[in-house]
Amino acid sequence: MAKRRAAADGEGVLIATYFAPLAADAPGAFSLLDDCAALTPTPGHDLILKTDPIREGVHFFSDADAADIAWKALAVNVSDLVAKGARPVGYVMALSFPEEPSARWLKKFAAGLKAAQTAFGLTLLGGDTDRAPGPLSVAITAFGEVPAGKMVQRGTARVGDRVFVSGTLGDAALGLALVKRPLAAIEMRLLSHQCDFVMDRYDRPTPRVALAPLLLAHASASMDISDGLLKDAGRMADASGVALAMEFERLPLSDAMTRALAANAERMRDVVAHGDDYEVLFTVPEAGVATFVSAARALPFRMTEIGVVKKGAGAVIAGADGKPLVFDKSGYEHF
Amino acid sequence: MAKRRAAADGEGVLIATYFAPLAADAPGAFSLLDDCAALTPTPGHDLILKTDPIREGVHFFSDADAADIAWKALAVNVSDLVAKGARPVGYVMALSFPEEPSARWLKKFAAGLKAAQTAFGLTLLGGDTDRAPGPLSVAITAFGEVPAGKMVQRGTARVGDRVFVSGTLGDAALGLALVKRPLAAIEMRLLSHQCDFVMDRYDRPTPRVALAPLLLAHASASMDISDGLLKDAGRMADASGVALAMEFERLPLSDAMTRALAANAERMRDVVAHGDDYEVLFTVPEAGVATFVSAARALPFRMTEIGVVKKGAGAVIAGADGKPLVFDKSGYEHF
Repeated sequence: MAKRRAAADGEGVLIATYFAPLAADAPGAFSLLDDCAALTPTPGHDLILKTDPIREGVHFFSDADAADIAWKALAVNVSDLVAKGARPVGYVMALSFPEEPSARWLKKFAAGLKAAQTAFGLTLLGGDTDRAPGPLSVAITAFGEVPAGKMVQRGTARVGDRVFVSGTLGDAALGLALVKRPLAAIEMRLLSHQCDFVMDRYDRPTPRVALAPLLLAHASASMDISDGLLKDAGRMADASGVALAMEFERLPLSDAMTRALAANAERMRDVVAHGDDYEVLFTVPEAGVATFVSAARALPFRMTEIGVVKKGAGAVIAGADGKPLVFDKSGYEHF
Repeated sequence: MAKRRAAADGEGVLIATYFAPLAADAPGAFSLLDDCAALTPTPGHDLILKTDPIREGVHFFSDADAADIAWKALAVNVSDLVAKGARPVGYVMALSFPEEPSARWLKKFAAGLKAAQTAFGLTLLGGDTDRAPGPLSVAITAFGEVPAGKMVQRGTARVGDRVFVSGTLGDAALGLALVKRPLAAIEMRLLSHQCDFVMDRYDRPTPRVALAPLLLAHASASMDISDGLLKDAGRMADASGVALAMEFERLPLSDAMTRALAANAERMRDVVAHGDDYEVLFTVPEAGVATFVSAARALPFRMTEIGVVKKGAGAVIAGADGKPLVFDKSGYEHF
C-alpha cells in the first residue's frame, strides 16, 4: 500500500509533530490526517457533549505555563461531563494563535494535554489550528458517555433531597490571589506547601472523574461549580424550581483556606462566590444518602453534605448567625 | 412538577431568548438549560466530528451581515461532514463577543442559524457564550452520522480512480473581490444577477448535503475544498500516496466565472487556488463511474469528472497546452 503522509504545509507539519501523538490511541482520529474524526459510540449509551473555550486574559494570564493552559482547557470541559455522570471519551480542539507559536511552547502545551488526557481518561480525536488576531484561544469540545437517558441533569433536584459538594471550596481563589501577587501569602498566613497547593488548585483543576459512576447511581441532580457555589447553586435551584438551603459552617475547607479565613473573614466570599473551583454540586434523595455516603468513602477526595432542598426559590447559604450571607456579586459574570 | 426556569443572569437570558428556540427539536439539548447536551446515536453508526471556528477579520469582515456570519459558521463545518459521507445531526457552538452584542445583531444571527439548520438538516445541541477581547469568534463543533466504519477518508484514493468535483469553482473568489470593491464587477464584466450569485457563493456557501449518501455508496476518497482545489487535491494525493492529475479545461465554471475569465485570464488562479469554495473533491473507482454518474443526475447541482488518480505524488492541473499550472501560492495558508 502506498505510504500515507501528512500535508507538507505549516498546519500539517505542526499537527503531525505535536498533536498526532495525542491521538494515537483513537483509531477514529485517523492520526489527525483526515478532515473529520469518527467516534464509535458504545451501544446503548448517549454521548454527552460540552464546549467551553478558554482565552488568554479571561481564563488565564499571558505568562501562564503552556502545560497548565492545556491542562485547564481540557479540565474545564471534563469537569462538566463528569458532573453529568459521564465517562470521558474524547475531545476535539480548535487552537487560535495570534502569532506563530514557538516549538518550546508547543512541546509544553502538548505535554500538558498528554498529562491531562492520561489523568482524565480521554483522547484527542481531531481539531483545527489557525492564526487570528486577538488573544490565544483554546476551544475544546469534549465527549463522554452515559447509559442511554441517564445523564444527571441540573434541573431535577427535589424537595427533601440532601445537597452535597465534592472536594474543598475557594482554594482556586487563593491560588489566583497568589498568582497575581506572591506576597499575598503573608496576609493569608499560608505555609509554603499551602501556597503550592492553592496555586495548583488554580492552575490545574482536577475533574472528579471517579465521582461520575456514583452520581449516575445516587444523584438526583448535579452540576459543576465553575462560577462559584452560590451562583451555581442558584442555577440548580432555578432549573429545578426549588430552593437550596446551605450552611457556611458545613462547607468543606482546605487547611489553607481555614488559615486564610482565620486571618481575614472576608475570604468567606472566596469560598462561596468565586469561580474556578470545578467541584461538583449535587443532590441525593434522603433515602439514598446512607448508601451514597458509604460508597463515597472509597473516593480519594472529600464528599460533604452541605444543605437540603426546600420548597421555594433560589440558593441561600446561612452564616453562623443563621442569617443568609449576601455579597455584592454572587459569582463570576460572563456578561 | 415545579416550573423550571433559565438562570436569571446575563448569559442565561441571552441563551433563553435567542438560542433555546434553535434547540427546540432536540430533546437532548434540554432547552439549553443544562451544562451539557446528550446525543443518542443511531445504533450501528459512527459519529463524525468536526470543529472549525470562524473569526472576524480572518473568515468574515466586520461589516458582514450577522445572518451570513451564522450561516457560514455552520456551513464550513457541515461541508466537512458531508464530504465524509455523513448525515448532519447536530452541533454545539461557543460564541465569544468582544462587547455585548445588540438585540438586533443577535436576532439576525439566530435567524441565520435557523435558516442554515433547516437547509442542512441539523439542530443546535448546546453551547457557551462569553466576552473576551479580540475579534468576534464563532466556534462550532458539528456532528454527523455514517454507518459504522464507513466514513469516506481523504487518504484512500487509488491509482486508476476518477477524480470528481461538485458544483462550480472559484465563484466565492469573485464574490470576495466584489465584497471588497463593488466596482470590480465592471472589469469582471458581470451582469447584475451574476454579481448577486457570486456574492451569495461567498457569503452563504452551501454544503452538498444531498451528495453524502452517494459518496458513501460510490466514492473511494473524499474531502471538501475549503482551501482551494490545487492545495486540497495535493493533500488528498499526499494522504493517499498517489498523484492527482487534473485538467483545467474540464473544471466546472459558472456563467459568472466564464465571463470573468474571458475578461481576465488571471482569474484562473481564483478557480484553482482560492479558498472558500466548499465544494467536494472525491474519487470514484473506474468500474463504478457509470453507476455513480447515473445516480448523480438526480442531484440539484453539477458533478464533474476532472481528472484521474495516477502513480506518483502531488496534484497537478494541466493547462490548455498540457503543461502544469503553477501559482506563487497554491491556496489559503493558515500559517
